[in-house]
Amino acid sequence: MPDVVKTGVDGLDSILNGGIVRNATVLVSGNPGTGKSIFGIQYLYDGVTEYDERGVYVSFEENEDDIRQAAESVGFDRWSELVENGDIKVYDKRQMLREEDFMSAVDALLEDFSSDEYDRLVLDSLTMFQLFFDDEREKRTYLLKFSDVLKEYGLTSLLINEQGSMFPDTEIGLENFLTDGNIYFIQTPTDSGVNRYIWVAKMRKQNINTDIFPLEIGEGGVTVHEQAGGFSMMGKEESMF
Amino acid sequence: MPDVVKTGVDGLDSILNGGIVRNATVLVSGNPGTGKSIFGIQYLYDGVTEYDERGVYVSFEENEDDIRQAAESVGFDRWSELVENGDIKVYDKRQMLREEDFMSAVDALLEDFSSDEYDRLVLDSLTMFQLFFDDEREKRTYLLKFSDVLKEYGLTSLLINEQGSMFPDTEIGLENFLTDGNIYFIQTPTDSGVNRYIWVAKMRKQNINTDIFPLEIGEGGVTVHEQAGGFSMMGKEESMF
Amino acid sequence: MPDVVKTGVDGLDSILNGGIVRNATVLVSGNPGTGKSIFGIQYLYDGVTEYDERGVYVSFEENEDDIRQAAESVGFDRWSELVENGDIKVYDKRQMLREEDFMSAVDALLEDFSSDEYDRLVLDSLTMFQLFFDDEREKRTYLLKFSDVLKEYGLTSLLINEQGSMFPDTEIGLENFLTDGNIYFIQTPTDSGVNRYIWVAKMRKQNINTDIFPLEIGEGGVTVHEQAGGFSMMGKEESMF
Amino acid sequence: MPDVVKTGVDGLDSILNGGIVRNATVLVSGNPGTGKSIFGIQYLYDGVTEYDERGVYVSFEENEDDIRQAAESVGFDRWSELVENGDIKVYDKRQMLREEDFMSAVDALLEDFSSDEYDRLVLDSLTMFQLFFDDEREKRTYLLKFSDVLKEYGLTSLLINEQGSMFPDTEIGLENFLTDGNIYFIQTPTDSGVNRYIWVAKMRKQNINTDIFPLEIGEGGVTVHEQAGGFSMMGKEESMF
Amino acid sequence: MPDVVKTGVDGLDSILNGGIVRNATVLVSGNPGTGKSIFGIQYLYDGVTEYDERGVYVSFEENEDDIRQAAESVGFDRWSELVENGDIKVYDKRQMLREEDFMSAVDALLEDFSSDEYDRLVLDSLTMFQLFFDDEREKRTYLLKFSDVLKEYGLTSLLINEQGSMFPDTEIGLENFLTDGNIYFIQTPTDSGVNRYIWVAKMRKQNINTDIFPLEIGEGGVTVHEQAGGFSMMGKEESMF
Amino acid sequence: MPDVVKTGVDGLDSILNGGIVRNATVLVSGNPGTGKSIFGIQYLYDGVTEYDERGVYVSFEENEDDIRQAAESVGFDRWSELVENGDIKVYDKRQMLREEDFMSAVDALLEDFSSDEYDRLVLDSLTMFQLFFDDEREKRTYLLKFSDVLKEYGLTSLLINEQGSMFPDTEIGLENFLTDGNIYFIQTPTDSGVNRYIWVAKMRKQNINTDIFPLEIGEGGVTVHEQAGGFSMMGKEESMF
Ligand SMILES: Nc1ncnc2c1ncn2[C@@H]1O[C@H](COP(=O)(O)OP(=O)(O)O)[C@@H](O)[C@H]1O
Ligand SMILES: Nc1ncnc2c1ncn2[C@@H]1O[C@H](COP(=O)(O)OP(=O)(O)O)[C@@H](O)[C@H]1O
Ligand SMILES: Nc1ncnc2c1ncn2[C@@H]1O[C@H](COP(=O)(O)OP(=O)(O)O)[C@@H](O)[C@H]1O
Ligand SMILES: Nc1ncnc2c1ncn2[C@@H]1O[C@H](COP(=O)(O)OP(=O)(O)O)[C@@H](O)[C@H]1O
Ligand SMILES: Nc1ncnc2c1ncn2[C@@H]1O[C@H](COP(=O)(O)OP(=O)(O)O)[C@@H](O)[C@H]1O
Ligand SMILES: Nc1ncnc2c1ncn2[C@@H]1O[C@H](COP(=O)(O)OP(=O)(O)O)[C@@H](O)[C@H]1O
Ligand SMILES: [Mg+2]
Ligand SMILES: [Mg+2]
Ligand SMILES: [Mg+2]
Ligand SMILES: [Mg+2]
Ligand SMILES: [Mg+2]
Ligand SMILES: [Mg+2]
Repeated sequence: MPDVVKTGVDGLDSILNGGIVRNATVLVSGNPGTGKSIFGIQYLYDGVTEYDERGVYVSFEENEDDIRQAAESVGFDRWSELVENGDIKVYDKRQMLREEDFMSAVDALLEDFSSDEYDRLVLDSLTMFQLFFDDEREKRTYLLKFSDVLKEYGLTSLLINEQGSMFPDTEIGLENFLTDGNIYFIQTPTDSGVNRYIWVAKMRKQNINTDIFPLEIGEGGVTVHEQAGGFSMMGKEESMF
Repeated sequence: MPDVVKTGVDGLDSILNGGIVRNATVLVSGNPGTGKSIFGIQYLYDGVTEYDERGVYVSFEENEDDIRQAAESVGFDRWSELVENGDIKVYDKRQMLREEDFMSAVDALLEDFSSDEYDRLVLDSLTMFQLFFDDEREKRTYLLKFSDVLKEYGLTSLLINEQGSMFPDTEIGLENFLTDGNIYFIQTPTDSGVNRYIWVAKMRKQNINTDIFPLEIGEGGVTVHEQAGGFSMMGKEESMF
Repeated sequence: MPDVVKTGVDGLDSILNGGIVRNATVLVSGNPGTGKSIFGIQYLYDGVTEYDERGVYVSFEENEDDIRQAAESVGFDRWSELVENGDIKVYDKRQMLREEDFMSAVDALLEDFSSDEYDRLVLDSLTMFQLFFDDEREKRTYLLKFSDVLKEYGLTSLLINEQGSMFPDTEIGLENFLTDGNIYFIQTPTDSGVNRYIWVAKMRKQNINTDIFPLEIGEGGVTVHEQAGGFSMMGKEESMF
Repeated sequence: MPDVVKTGVDGLDSILNGGIVRNATVLVSGNPGTGKSIFGIQYLYDGVTEYDERGVYVSFEENEDDIRQAAESVGFDRWSELVENGDIKVYDKRQMLREEDFMSAVDALLEDFSSDEYDRLVLDSLTMFQLFFDDEREKRTYLLKFSDVLKEYGLTSLLINEQGSMFPDTEIGLENFLTDGNIYFIQTPTDSGVNRYIWVAKMRKQNINTDIFPLEIGEGGVTVHEQAGGFSMMGKEESMF
Repeated sequence: MPDVVKTGVDGLDSILNGGIVRNATVLVSGNPGTGKSIFGIQYLYDGVTEYDERGVYVSFEENEDDIRQAAESVGFDRWSELVENGDIKVYDKRQMLREEDFMSAVDALLEDFSSDEYDRLVLDSLTMFQLFFDDEREKRTYLLKFSDVLKEYGLTSLLINEQGSMFPDTEIGLENFLTDGNIYFIQTPTDSGVNRYIWVAKMRKQNINTDIFPLEIGEGGVTVHEQAGGFSMMGKEESMF
Repeated sequence: MPDVVKTGVDGLDSILNGGIVRNATVLVSGNPGTGKSIFGIQYLYDGVTEYDERGVYVSFEENEDDIRQAAESVGFDRWSELVENGDIKVYDKRQMLREEDFMSAVDALLEDFSSDEYDRLVLDSLTMFQLFFDDEREKRTYLLKFSDVLKEYGLTSLLINEQGSMFPDTEIGLENFLTDGNIYFIQTPTDSGVNRYIWVAKMRKQNINTDIFPLEIGEGGVTVHEQAGGFSMMGKEESMF
C-alpha cells in the first residue's frame, strides 16, 4: 500500500483508502460555496496540528484576513498562531497581485517551496491562476511545469477548481487529466434547497470508493458521512436551474 | 459570530444567520424583473433609516429620476430627502456616461468612497459595468482591484448581476468566485405565470440556510417568507421557456 | 400611482395595472408571426384615435405600404389618413436604407423627435437596428444613448425584439436590462398548431400581473383575455420540434 | 381581403385563407428531403398551367436537367415545354456559377426580372445563396436590397431555406423576420420512419390557420390534407436519434 | 421510372425503389464503425461482379492494404484481382498524401475520371477531404465544382460522411443539400450494446421508403432486412451516454 | 481470420473476437479515472510476460516513477525489471518535455521505433499530444503521418483519448475515424457512485461484439466480465450531474 497523507477529514480518508497518495496532485472541483476553501484550510490546519506537516496556502481569491476569519468561523482557532509561527505559510491575493509581473510572483513562490520545509499545498484557485494567462499554449506549458515542480519539491497538493456551471457535466479540461486525483464537491438541488456531497472520481494508484457521500460544513470544518446513499440524483434537466 | 450588516429584509437576514458579514462583497444574481434593483434600493434605504449607515447607489442602467420613482413606488417616500441630505449618494447612468473616459469616471467614483463616509454600496449592475471593457484580461484585472478597493474602504457591497438566460444554470464566471457571497433572485415558471424565490448559495464565514424561500415585491419593497417549501422546482427542459 | 400610457389593448392595460408607465422604454419580444408588429401598429393607432397622442413608427422590416396594408387587414381603416395628416409619422425600411450612412439616418430621425410633437414610438425592430453595427462596443454605446434620448424627448416607446429561437429561453441580452419593461409574445406548440399568449415579465415601478394570458389576433388587432389559465406549458424538449 | 396568389396546392391555399398575399416574400424552411424543391417546382408549373402566371426558378443546388427530371418524376410532363417556350425561366447551378463574379451573376439575374414578364419566383436555396457572402454585413445588406427588389418587380416569391438541424427549433435568422411569411416543411420521426407535415407559422396581413397539416409527396407533387390532427408531436429529446 | 444503379444490397435497392438514380451523388452518413466503408467496398465489388460497372475507391482514411483486408474479411475474395485488372481503381491515403500539393492530387484524380471508364465512385471520406481546406469559402466552391464534375463524368457516387457526434441530430451542412440523396447508417444504443439500422432520408426524383430498417454486417458485407420495425427509438437524452 | 494481438484482458479479447487485429491503431477513449492508463500498462506488461512482445509506453501525463507505482499498485511487480531490461521502453512526461522543440522530441521517438524491436505501443495520451499543436491543419497532417508511421513500423497501438466531457456523447473528432478501432471506457453514474463498463464501438476487419460489458479495476489490472447486461443505461439528462 502506498504512503498516504491524511486529509484531516476522517470520512474522506476512509473513502480514499487511507488518504491521498503522498506526492500526488489532486484537483478539488466544485461550484462556488460548496466548501472547497474550507476543506483546503482544514487540510493544512489538521496537517500541522495532527500530523506535524507544514503547509502553504496560496490564494488568488481572498485576503489573509478573510482566510483567517473563515478558518476561525469553523473553529480552527489556532490558525493565526500557526501562520505567525510559520507552520502555515499564506500567500494571499494582495501579495500575488502586488508584483507587476505575475510570472515572477509565481516564480518567487516556487522558489520558496524549494526549501523542502513544506509538505502540503493548497492552491485556491487553479481557475484564477489560469486566468492570468492569455495564451492557451503558454498556459498549458506552464501548468505542466508547475505540476511537475510541486511533485519535485515533495508536496502533496490540492488544486482548487472553480467549476464553470451549476452542474459538473461540462467540459473536462487539461487540469483533470494532468492531476493524479479528482475530488468533486457537489450541491444537488432539492425541492427546498441544496444537499452537499463529495465524490472521488479518480485517484491514481489507489483502490478508491467511487460512491457519493453526504458532506456537511460547520464547526470543525467539513465532515463526510461514510455511509453512502441518500444521494438524491437529479439531472440537469429536471433540476431547479 | 462575525459582525453583520442587516439587509433590511428581515426574512433574508434570518436566512443569512444575522445578515451579511460586514465588509463582504455579495453578488446578487437574477433575470430582469426579479427585484434585484428594488432590493438594492431597500438595502440602502433601510441602511440609513434603521441602522444609520450611509450608502452609495451606482447605476449604469437607470437615471436618478427612475431610481427615485422606483423607490417611491414601493413606499420608500423619504428617498429624495435622503439623497438630498447626502445619506444616500447616487451615481446614475447619465453621470457615469458623461465622462469621455469610462475608467476615469470609475476612478473618480472610487476616490469619493475613500472618504470613509459610506458603509454600504450597490452596483447596478456589474454586468453593465463589465460591458465597458473590451479586453478580457483588462476586465479581470480591474474587477480584482475593484473588489479589493471596496473592501479596503470598509464597504459592504451588493454587486448586481443581470443573468444571461432565463434559468440560472448557465456559465458561472469570475464574479461568482471573487465575491464572498452569492444570492439568487429566481422566477420559476408555473402554469399561469411566475413565482418568485430567493436562494443564498454561498456566504463565506457564515452558517447560512441554503433552502429556497418565497419572495414578494410590493409596498415596503422585497419581503422574504421564512418558511421554505412551496418552491415548485421546474427544470429548464420542462419549463415554459 | 404613476402616470400611465394606455396601450390600446384593454386586457393588457389591466395586466399592467393601468398601462405602461409614462416615459418608459418597453421591450416587446417574440418569434416571427407572434403579433408584435400588429401590436405596435395598434399602440399608435389607438394612441391617436382614443387618447389623442401622436406617434412614430420606425420600421426596418417593412415598407410604408406593407405597414398600411397590415393595419387595414385588422380593420384600422383610418391608418392612411392618420399618416397623411401627420398624427402618425412612418419611417419605413426604404427610407432608413436610402441614406448611405446609417448613423446619419438615425441621427436625422432623432432630430425629428426632438420637436416634442410625439408621445409614442415603435421601433420595428431593435433586432434589425442592431444588425447595422459591426462593432459590439459601438452598438452598446449607441443603444445606451438611444434609449436615453427617447426618454429625454418624453416618448413612451416599444422596442420590438425578434427572438432568435423558437422558444424564449435563449440568451438575455443588454436590451433586456436596459429597458424598463419586458413583454413577451409567445406561441406555444400544441398537437395541432400553436396557441398565442402574452406575458409581462418586468415593468419597473409597477405592480404587474406576472401571469400568462391568452392572446388573439384578428379584426381590431390584438386582444388579450384577462382570465389567465389555459396556458399549456410546454418545454423545449417536449415540444413540437 | 387582400389579393392572393394560388400556390397550386389546394390544401395549402385553404390554410393560407386563399393563397399567398400577392407580392409577398415567403420563406419555405425544412430539412433536406422534405419536399421544398418539389413544392417550388409545382408553384411555378401550376402558376403557368392553371393561373397563367409566368415564373422564374433560380437554383444554386441543381442543374436544369435535374430539375426537369424531378418535375417529370412527379408528373409535371410539360415542364420542358414550358421552359422552352419561356413561360418558366430556369437559372441553374452551372449558369450561376459560370460567372467569375457571383455578384454580377445575381445583378444580371435581377435585371432580367425588371422586365415585368414574371409573376412568381423560386429561389432554391436562399441558404446556398447566402453562402457566397463572406462578410456578415455585406450579406445582410444584400439580402435587404434583394428582398426589396423582388417586391418592386411585382414578384410573389418563395425563398427556400435549408434548415441546419434535424429539428426546426434552432436559431431564427434575419431571413425569418425579413420575409412576409414563414412556411415549414417538417419531418417528424416515428418508430418506423418519418411523417411529413406542413406548418404556416406566419403570414403578414392574413388570418392564417396555424395548425399543422399532414403532407404527402407523389404523383402530382405535394398534397396537403386539410384535416389537421394526426400530427405526432415529438420533442428533440425523445426523438429518433 | 428513372434509370437506376443497383447498390448491391438487395434490401436497400428495394427501399430505394430500384436503386440509386443513375448519375446521382449520394451522401452516406454515420458514426465510425457503422459500416459505411464496408458498404462502399460492396457497392464497387458488386458493381463489377454483378453489373459489370467499373468503379473507383478514393480513401483518405485507409491504405490499399487495409481496404483489401476489410474486403476479404467479409468474403469479397476477388477484391485484389479486380484491383489488379483495373476493374476497381484504388486511390489510397498514402497516394493522396504523397503529393505536396493536395489540390493537384485531387486534380490529377479528376483527370483520371474523365476517361469515362468508370461508372461508380466512393469517396471515403468527404469529411477527411474537407479537412484539407482551411478556407471556408474555398472549401464550398471546391465542393460545388467537385460534385458537378462527378455528374459530368457520368459517375454515380457515394460520398462518405463521418458524423461528428454520437447521434445524427447535429448540424446539417452544405454537403446534405448539395447531394441528391442522403442515406444514414445508424447505431442506436440499447441496454446491452447497439443495434444497426439504415435510413434513406432523401432521394431526389424517387419515391423512396422513408422507414428505418435493420442492418447487419458480416459475411457478404452489409445486409438490410426489408421488414421495417424493431427499430428501438431512443432520444439523445434518454440514451446510453 | 486475421492475425490478432492479445490485449492481456481475457474478457476483452473474447469481445474482440480474438484480440486486436495486428498492426491496427486503436483509440481508447474515456473520462479521467476510467482505467485507460492501467489498461495501457497491462497491455504492455502482458505483452512481454505472456506473449513475448516488447512494447513502448509514451506518456505526456505522468513520470516514469508514477507509471511504475501505478503498475505495482495493481500487482505488475516485474514492471521495473522489464523496463530495466528493455522489454518495455518508457518515454515519460519529463523526457518528452525536456526538448525545447516538441517536434524533434517526437521525431527522435519515431526514429527509435524504426528499429523494429517493438510490437506494441501505448500513447498516453493522444489528447495531450495534440495540445502541442497550435495550428489545426498542422495537427491534422501530423496525426495522419504519425498514424501511418506506426503502421509502417509494424506496431499495434493504443492511442489514449481523454474525453472532454462527463459523457461520451460529444464531438467525434478526426482521431475517431483515422483509427482502426474505438474502445470506450465508461463510468455510468448511479445513485451511490459509478459503475464501470467497456464498449468496443468499432474494429475494422473484425466481427466484434458491440455489447457493453462490466469492467473492474483491481489486483491484476483491468478485468472484463464477459456476460453482458447489468449495464444501467443512463442518459445525460437523467444522470447525476
Ligand atoms: N491499485 C488499485 N486498485 C484498485 N483500483 C485502482 C488501483 N489503482 C487505480 N485504481 C483505480 O483506477 C483509476 C485510475 O485509473 P487510470 O488508469 O489512471 O485512469 P485513466 O488513465 O483513465 O485516467 C483510479 O481512479 C482508481 O479508481
Ligand atoms: N462557520 C460556518 N458554519 C457553517 N457553514 C459555513 C461556515 N462558513 C462557511 N460555511 C458554508 O461554507 C460555504 C463556503 O465554503 P467555501 O469553502 O468558501 O466554498 P468554496 O471555496 O467552495 O466557494 C458557505 O457558503 C457556507 O454555506
Ligand atoms: N388580418 C388578420 N387577421 C387575422 N390574423 C392576422 C391578420 N393579419 C395578420 N395576422 C396574424 O398575425 C401574424 C403576423 O403578425 P405580425 O404582427 O406581423 O407578427 P410579428 O411582427 O411578431 O412578426 C400573422 O402570421 C397572422 O397569423
Ligand atoms: N411598486 C411596485 N409594486 C409591486 N411590484 C413592483 C413594484 N415596482 C416594481 N415591481 C415589480 O418588481 C419588478 C422590477 O423589479 P426590479 O428590482 O427593477 O428588477 P431587476 O432589477 O431585477 O430587473 C417589476 O417587474 C415588478 O414586477
Ligand atoms: N417522384 C416521386 N415520387 C414520390 N416521392 C418523391 C418523388 N420525387 C421525390 N420524392 C420525395 O421527395 C423528396 C425530395 O424532395 P425535394 O423537394 O427534393 O426535397 P428538398 O428540396 O426539401 O430537399 C425525396 O427525398 C423523396 O422522398
Ligand atoms: N468481417 C467482419 N465481420 C463482421 N463484422 C465486421 C467485419 N468487418 C467489420 N465488421 C464490422 O463493421 C465495422 C466497421 O465497418 P466500417 O465499414 O469500417 O465502418 P465505418 O466505415 O462506418 O467506420 C466494425 O466495427 C465491425 O463491427
Ligand atoms: Mg473558495
Ligand atoms: Mg434592475
Ligand atoms: Mg413584425
Ligand atoms: Mg431541394
Ligand atoms: Mg470507414
Ligand atoms: Mg491515464
